[in-house]
Amino acid sequence: MEKLKIAFIGAGSAIWSSTIVIDLLINEGLKDKNLEIWLMDISDWRLDLIYGFAKRYIEEMKSSARVFKTKDRGEAIRDADFVINSAMAGGHSYYEEMRRVSEEHGYYRGINSVEWNMVSDYHTIWGYYQFKLTLDIARDIEELAPDAWFINVANPVFELSTLVTRQTKVKYIGLCHGHLGFLKAVEVLGIRLAEEKLGERINALCAARDPKGYATIFKVVDPKDLEVEMSGFNHVIWLTKFRYAGEDAYCYVDEWVERGAEEYWRVWREHVSSPFDIDLSPAAVDMYRTYGLLPIGDTVRGGTWKYHWDLRTKQRWYGPLGGPDSEIGWAMYLAHLRSRLESLRHAVMDTSTPLVRRFPPRPSGESLVEIIEAIVNDNPKEYYSLHLPFPGAPTIPVPIQVNVPNKGALPGVPDDVVVEMPVKVDGKGVHRRPLTPLPKKIMNYVILPRMMRMEWALEAFLEGGRDHLFNWLIVDPRTQSTRQVEETIDAILKLPGNEEMAKHFS
Amino acid sequence: MEKLKIAFIGAGSAIWSSTIVIDLLINEGLKDKNLEIWLMDISDWRLDLIYGFAKRYIEEMKSSARVFKTKDRGEAIRDADFVINSAMAGGHSYYEEMRRVSEEHGYYRGINSVEWNMVSDYHTIWGYYQFKLTLDIARDIEELAPDAWFINVANPVFELSTLVTRQTKVKYIGLCHGHLGFLKAVEVLGIRLAEEKLGERINALCAARDPKGYATIFKVVDPKDLEVEMSGFNHVIWLTKFRYAGEDAYCYVDEWVERGAEEYWRVWREHVSSPFDIDLSPAAVDMYRTYGLLPIGDTVRGGTWKYHWDLRTKQRWYGPLGGPDSEIGWAMYLAHLRSRLESLRHAVMDTSTPLVRRFPPRPSGESLVEIIEAIVNDNPKEYYSLHLPFPGAPTIPVPIQVNVPNKGALPGVPDDVVVEMPVKVDGKGVHRRPLTPLPKKIMNYVILPRMMRMEWALEAFLEGGRDHLFNWLIVDPRTQSTRQVEETIDAILKLPGNEEMAKHFS
Repeated sequence: MEKLKIAFIGAGSAIWSSTIVIDLLINEGLKDKNLEIWLMDISDWRLDLIYGFAKRYIEEMKSSARVFKTKDRGEAIRDADFVINSAMAGGHSYYEEMRRVSEEHGYYRGINSVEWNMVSDYHTIWGYYQFKLTLDIARDIEELAPDAWFINVANPVFELSTLVTRQTKVKYIGLCHGHLGFLKAVEVLGIRLAEEKLGERINALCAARDPKGYATIFKVVDPKDLEVEMSGFNHVIWLTKFRYAGEDAYCYVDEWVERGAEEYWRVWREHVSSPFDIDLSPAAVDMYRTYGLLPIGDTVRGGTWKYHWDLRTKQRWYGPLGGPDSEIGWAMYLAHLRSRLESLRHAVMDTSTPLVRRFPPRPSGESLVEIIEAIVNDNPKEYYSLHLPFPGAPTIPVPIQVNVPNKGALPGVPDDVVVEMPVKVDGKGVHRRPLTPLPKKIMNYVILPRMMRMEWALEAFLEGGRDHLFNWLIVDPRTQSTRQVEETIDAILKLPGNEEMAKHFS
Repeated sequence: MEKLKIAFIGAGSAIWSSTIVIDLLINEGLKDKNLEIWLMDISDWRLDLIYGFAKRYIEEMKSSARVFKTKDRGEAIRDADFVINSAMAGGHSYYEEMRRVSEEHGYYRGINSVEWNMVSDYHTIWGYYQFKLTLDIARDIEELAPDAWFINVANPVFELSTLVTRQTKVKYIGLCHGHLGFLKAVEVLGIRLAEEKLGERINALCAARDPKGYATIFKVVDPKDLEVEMSGFNHVIWLTKFRYAGEDAYCYVDEWVERGAEEYWRVWREHVSSPFDIDLSPAAVDMYRTYGLLPIGDTVRGGTWKYHWDLRTKQRWYGPLGGPDSEIGWAMYLAHLRSRLESLRHAVMDTSTPLVRRFPPRPSGESLVEIIEAIVNDNPKEYYSLHLPFPGAPTIPVPIQVNVPNKGALPGVPDDVVVEMPVKVDGKGVHRRPLTPLPKKIMNYVILPRMMRMEWALEAFLEGGRDHLFNWLIVDPRTQSTRQVEETIDAILKLPGNEEMAKHFS
């Protein structure tokens, strides 16, 4: 009997993998496909953890799927139909060391954080091992499973996607869930419509994250009447289309910015509990005012140093936690990952409580398994359904959004640069459509500088040599002297574990 | 029919109150007492939240208890049998403003943070409104419910307890759960015994917070054979007795410090997910080496500036999050509170899931309701049972630990200073016993300076006048000039909301 082999590389990213494993097991379209899940990681305990999870979950669901674990990447990849990669070479603590050393030399949040790339685990110029690992995986696929789809969620998605699609022939899709941030534009729409249609002021309720506010939104907003388009580079995408019931809905955003934003921020600052809760922050609104479109998802985390000089600056623009990429927000994120990992360990060990009780069999909201299903069953899809965790909330159609080489879709961007865009997926793969052009301000001050940094990072990885690091740092506004640049490079290359990288850049 | 009226002042501290409400409803000894729960708060939405929670929980439990809500403190207190206070005057954001202004003037973490009082919501010298509120509540009790027990959990417990017991005649108990930190000494004991008796090395497992490690501990440690004693001031308590199976168990601590601590810290630094996870941190061990006894619970958060100069210093001693009182740890704590409050709001609103499913009817581990039960039923208690959330873990006897005027129990401390100590509780109230004296080093370098700060804070509150603030700051090692002191006082007293406080200190 034919089988469907799905390999997880870096499966020990256990929180994420467990989510996708559940999505795979509950997807109706994959139930009769003789599913084989191959879990691969280099860490024994992480591999055992996700394997233990998957095994028990399959048993509890009485699924016919089979699960395997291996530390041999080739074994996982050989003859796979899909290879899902979430591996981070070195793990978080390795990059935190480079951040520490960078900060000692005057580079707050690390030499890697630059304009439009402030996300703390989007490892570009210092991502030597991550680039190498991802390219190696792609080459393994070329050799051992040439027909497989390589679905990569490991960051930096923009750089790695462009690298892999230029250097190999694998069938490639880069994925991220940042585009779900468009839901916050829907919140703004709902706030305004609630006032217009019901005479209800829910602005402060929503800012306080009160579920009553969200319940009201879905009395006035029918998700089926929404039309959105987002494009740009991964982590740098913009809401190029925002229509409701056939009309442009940006006017509601303008109204809210004018009349609601200040009140919203006052309440939000008192209630915000997640550093990632910044979609409607002063930074987002300032970017909208400056560049002309709403920045979506992780895009808000970027921007120039205007938003990022230091903790106080970040707190002004991103709220009391300073956003996810401040020293506070990032520590919270890493601690949150550890804490969820700890809970997962407890859950897998405690056989007295079924896993399905703790991790209910419900779709995660990730598009990954929806895309796999569309390809496997040649089931054309432009949208998938998102179920919000509010009692009574309607399902929301979300565009299938992928990172693939531009090939003419977004005007002004070269064909071989990977763009994040909405597409149709079916048995033949990904189908692009022409995209709304981005405004000139975004092209000039966002897309071009970000693309330049991507090209520099790829060149540094492919060519090697110290000059690349020097050129990266000499344009950094934090740089005060040539000596600072040289000393910083020395300090980073001298770190334990960086021996090979040091040779590469010598 | 006689009733048992229990009033919650500051009931809108909803996470905490909901815990105690559950404890009250499930306590077997209180089931037939015709329980009346009175919830009082000045915030409408917080009061509605905890009232909504209690009402539904009572219904789901089919309890005969009745619950009432009021914004009138007098109504809640009148004829109560117990008044539980958890009110924080002004709420967290008010104190964060004073911290911000202090930091602008060179006082990292605020003028309130001083030697042995680094806990970020232990508001002493800037706690004018908090002192006033707590004393007002005590006076209301004197007038409206003179026979009631006043159980105060609001911080600063040390200062407020001494203030209230000196200034009023109420029957008073101050409570805190910091003494539960002694469980980490049990962890050390278990790590050593596992190696001694089973030949199993679980040091790294425990440091990684792996539940397998804890399961092993309870194979070799029988909690019934433990004997512990802790005393000192609230948040400054020390393990004066640590015996196992009739023998001194401090030798296991010494062994672990010698052979296990370094490895433990290496692993713990990689896994720590809560800023409060510092009981076995380098700071705790350094305090043990310096002062001769293990610091317990929040005591570890204190110490001199040696552990607290700046974020880097805190990270060295308390791990990557810098402990709960760093800018990272404290932001995490406040965000955590908000996030739990948000979950509670969801839970109370979502009537499709029973509250008892989300908040199972199990004892919280807090001693408060155990103490109430002992008093109500004249049921003498020196210990209560703690149920750890690990499958198969035994129950652990925990000493009843309260904050009451010393009255000779702890040698070297005046009678009218409140001491945290183990006691027996019964229908007549609290019964002290003679305590093991504290070593001279702790008396000189910890107890005396901390007591001095308490007296200064009480005097500042009772007498008023700017000199008290000046005297507080002029001995602060962060102070560089007299001008800095004057400007800091001005800036704090000029804050909106501080008008009355400014008058008091003028």
